[in-house]
Amino acid sequence: MRKSIAIDMDGVIADTETQFINWYERDYGIKIHPQDILGFKEDEMFPDKTAARKFAFTPGFFRTLPVMPGAVEALKKLMENFDVYIASAAMEFPQSLPEKHAWLQEHFPFISWHNIIFCGDKSIIGTDFLVDDHVKNLDFFKGKSVMFHAFHNVNFNHHQRVKTWEDAVILLETHL
Amino acid sequence: MRKSIAIDMDGVIADTETQFINWYERDYGIKIHPQDILGFKEDEMFPDKTAARKFAFTPGFFRTLPVMPGAVEALKKLMENFDVYIASAAMEFPQSLPEKHAWLQEHFPFISWHNIIFCGDKSIIGTDFLVDDHVKNLDFFKGKSVMFHAFHNVNFNHHQRVKTWEDAVILLETHL
Repeated sequence: MRKSIAIDMDGVIADTETQFINWYERDYGIKIHPQDILGFKEDEMFPDKTAARKFAFTPGFFRTLPVMPGAVEALKKLMENFDVYIASAAMEFPQSLPEKHAWLQEHFPFISWHNIIFCGDKSIIGTDFLVDDHVKNLDFFKGKSVMFHAFHNVNFNHHQRVKTWEDAVILLETHL
Repeated sequence: MRKSIAIDMDGVIADTETQFINWYERDYGIKIHPQDILGFKEDEMFPDKTAARKFAFTPGFFRTLPVMPGAVEALKKLMENFDVYIASAAMEFPQSLPEKHAWLQEHFPFISWHNIIFCGDKSIIGTDFLVDDHVKNLDFFKGKSVMFHAFHNVNFNHHQRVKTWEDAVILLETHL
């Protein structure tokens, strides 16, 4: 029987970090460098602590996220041997629901609507694997967790870390 | 440990049957009676077979659904002893996502965004129970299924049937 993988969107297949940094420079005139925010939470990453949350509630933020390098190729490869689901904790930002749906249709049109999950709490997702950047999601997942490297998770080491989508595919395929 | 229940929206806490029948009468001038569609699928329930699907893609359809009798009181009662999640297969109708979210906020404001799931395929939901009207969802669920009575499921008897929300609460509470 094929194993199943749930894959997070923000910070995993969508490059929220780059979008946050670019929007901060655009709106505040200050360029934040990725190495300066290592270990910071999203609400601590900018001098204006309210900025990241404000951006996440701004129409267009989720619709225009850059695709994480290697994500398209990796998901196509994983779909050869796994049932791949997209699982995004989108309910906190309800205005993002149609944006995230349209973004997936644009960049990942090969993912069927059958395989998309927008949720709040990910603990009820019953797949074999979860690839996510947030420990708050990984900690309560009942299957095998894979932590996708992100600035805010560099100080956590209780989940298997992958730094790139190439590494994620190699790791997941060892479980075939 | 509290057990968890996933609860479907359409046909379970939202009365899609009444809305379908009312909209058909409004648009086609023909009153369909509930007893005339017993055992019919949604795409067979009206003389114009395309009507139900057309309605489901019409803006406003999901936002204005009547609440199923007893559903609000039942969910409040169940939340005393269970972790209650709303799980709707909304991805087939992406325009419904914000409508369903707003509908829940209006009628079930006591359900946190943490506990809402909009998905395609429900087989990945890992709750202990699923209350749903569609055998296509119940058949692939890994926990205990509870079939909420609906016109289209009257000829299926391989899931535990409940006819009302009062009966659903009684059944679920026997599993405490």
